[in-house]
Amino acid sequence: MDAVDVIRTKRDGNVLSDAAIDWVIDAYTKGAVAEEQMSALLMAIFFNGMTPQELNRWTAAMIASGEQMSFADIGKPTTDKHSTGGVGDKITLPLAHTVAACGAAVPQLSGRGLGHTGGTLDKLESIPGWRASISNAEMRAQLRDVGAVVCAAGAGLAPADRKLYALRDVTATIESIPLIASSIMSKKIAEGTSALVLDVKVGVGAFMKDVDRARDLARTMVGLGSAHGVNTVALLTAMDTPLGLTAGNALEVTESVEVLAGGGPADVVELTIALAREMLEACGLGAGKDPADAIADGSAMDCWNAMISAQGGDPRAPLPVAPHQHDVTASSSGRVVRMDALAVGVAAWRLGAGRARKEDPVSLGAGVQMHAKPGDVVSAGQPLFTLHADDEARFERALEVLSDAVDIAAADAPWSKPDLVIERVGA
Amino acid sequence: MDAVDVIRTKRDGNVLSDAAIDWVIDAYTKGAVAEEQMSALLMAIFFNGMTPQELNRWTAAMIASGEQMSFADIGKPTTDKHSTGGVGDKITLPLAHTVAACGAAVPQLSGRGLGHTGGTLDKLESIPGWRASISNAEMRAQLRDVGAVVCAAGAGLAPADRKLYALRDVTATIESIPLIASSIMSKKIAEGTSALVLDVKVGVGAFMKDVDRARDLARTMVGLGSAHGVNTVALLTAMDTPLGLTAGNALEVTESVEVLAGGGPADVVELTIALAREMLEACGLGAGKDPADAIADGSAMDCWNAMISAQGGDPRAPLPVAPHQHDVTASSSGRVVRMDALAVGVAAWRLGAGRARKEDPVSLGAGVQMHAKPGDVVSAGQPLFTLHADDEARFERALEVLSDAVDIAAADAPWSKPDLVIERVGA
Repeated sequence: MDAVDVIRTKRDGNVLSDAAIDWVIDAYTKGAVAEEQMSALLMAIFFNGMTPQELNRWTAAMIASGEQMSFADIGKPTTDKHSTGGVGDKITLPLAHTVAACGAAVPQLSGRGLGHTGGTLDKLESIPGWRASISNAEMRAQLRDVGAVVCAAGAGLAPADRKLYALRDVTATIESIPLIASSIMSKKIAEGTSALVLDVKVGVGAFMKDVDRARDLARTMVGLGSAHGVNTVALLTAMDTPLGLTAGNALEVTESVEVLAGGGPADVVELTIALAREMLEACGLGAGKDPADAIADGSAMDCWNAMISAQGGDPRAPLPVAPHQHDVTASSSGRVVRMDALAVGVAAWRLGAGRARKEDPVSLGAGVQMHAKPGDVVSAGQPLFTLHADDEARFERALEVLSDAVDIAAADAPWSKPDLVIERVGA
Repeated sequence: MDAVDVIRTKRDGNVLSDAAIDWVIDAYTKGAVAEEQMSALLMAIFFNGMTPQELNRWTAAMIASGEQMSFADIGKPTTDKHSTGGVGDKITLPLAHTVAACGAAVPQLSGRGLGHTGGTLDKLESIPGWRASISNAEMRAQLRDVGAVVCAAGAGLAPADRKLYALRDVTATIESIPLIASSIMSKKIAEGTSALVLDVKVGVGAFMKDVDRARDLARTMVGLGSAHGVNTVALLTAMDTPLGLTAGNALEVTESVEVLAGGGPADVVELTIALAREMLEACGLGAGKDPADAIADGSAMDCWNAMISAQGGDPRAPLPVAPHQHDVTASSSGRVVRMDALAVGVAAWRLGAGRARKEDPVSLGAGVQMHAKPGDVVSAGQPLFTLHADDEARFERALEVLSDAVDIAAADAPWSKPDLVIERVGA
């Protein structure tokens, strides 16, 4: 097998054989296919795509590059969620524990933030003592005893994806549906969950700006999950407006705890419940306890506290607070009709909540707090945002990006709340 | 400037700015843009092409990556030829010296063979003592005194091309017209010739299999030459049948000397004269001595002998002869109507005359001698080929590829000689 032949086959629009795919992924993971050869192949895939058969095999080869976990013996059905990333998207925090409180095991392998979207692990790390790295044995015990685990994927899981993702990042080959789908699904399938719900974000604050492309990605991932025996379903959800009233690490943890306590912003509650029902349905627990009840009876909060304690954190410790605040006020009175998710996400990033490169540190206290959302009526001079930062010098560039983030119309302007869940993509 | 932005621009079908092109070629040559980034960009160029403006700038940046030679002060017009590579293509050997004998200076920077096509330097190295590497000062003196130089390009000439070519070779990005054209033309323009004739081969034994694609390449190169002040013209010439009666290093030198002596195969003579007239016309010597006269009066041979002596060789020394021969005979009587150039080229390669990787050695004596060409009438059992090799074990795989290389029709079958020069592409 020769890398140049494999590249040429894809370049010329022909179908890669199973043997070619197995070979190229394995040889690349081991370093026998050079980075420059793989990047040429990735760019050819960007242009010519992959057939469903090619993509199934490509994903299988990525899974086979590392260990495969199985939780078949822990006595509960496993179910997981993956979000393609949004602004203020703290849903995993209330969701995993709500679903676990309904009797499922949730092996939530999560990531860190990059650019304008936050990462679940960064958020949880604002809890004093909490650690993202746990052993496979600890994970198994915690799934059995607590029901939910939120942790970093071990280095042994789909190592081909780690190499491929780093390569795609520097070669402008991120934005390819088969490459995105195989990257996400190889890790989720290798993780050993029996059911998976995908939250595919659509809108200005999301990676996918339009619904057709998001649907295409959702269908591709649902197809991959099904082909590998994972009961997979996807929701396309709106990401034109930030989720909830916070974007930032500790800020979002606080908001998540409010949701687990039965309060919190309506959109976060709505999406948590919608995804929880899908996760339970997908793993065969759809007829059991309702997730809204698990929040109402405190069992979801108990599970949250147990998860934090099990992973070394103190659920009662105060969270970090940024030392500097700055308010942004409404320039006119009327109804908020737009709050740009991308602008808010970039502002939070510039305030220190996010990172530009994966080795950068993040500020735990920094971020954006929102005091109104689209649909709300505000008065001129009323605070719209409070910015939080460790360093006052951060405010200027955050304010810049927020200057055009909000539209205020007449108070009696017609307004209808857009759907949060746009579409469901089943197997 | 950021490599990912440059790749993304081209990937998305947009035009690269002059600044982006200058930056990416310079940064790549210096190692600041990684191999995997350049290969992704090359694959994006493979798919999306380059505008004439982009290609001019890309080529200019490649030229600017190294030294630029000038022969404006040697007192003669300079003119050069480049062939895209064929089987039995020894034309440079009689051509450069015929043109020099007509008063031009021919700074012929040549290459080595790879795959089924031979290289001019490999052929000349079968002459005892001859060396391909000479200094710039020696080159200048030899152009003035002898008129012709055939040598390897120095490492200082278009170093960007050296890196790019090595990268394209392992990433399946060779077959892109803008990348081929800029590779060839950057070296020829940097070499400082004032006129250039391109011999673009078309047919089964050539890199370009069809005339439309060959014409496209020719026009692209002629455009690049003109944009950089080099008077450039191209001939599309047939490469379905090997040129002459030999394919192999010393074998082709012997045949070239026959042409310089006034004999040799008709097709080699025809193409030598056609290209010589174009080279002289392009450098302003079209009204001077006719190249056929330079062969007839021995001045072309004098120049050949002077070039060999100047580069350390002995023009009278016997050439290497392979110790083993094997004849291939005609299976039937009749008229030869096809002799496959690719098959003969691969046979010569397998006999040892060519190399698979650029670091491989070549056999100087090995190759294929032809005893008939399309149009000739042969009798069953008459030798069609004599194979030459250093090792008898080489014959088997050469015979394999030759088994279907020749078609013999009835002796009275209609036959018309195809045109050797298919088309002329001027500025």
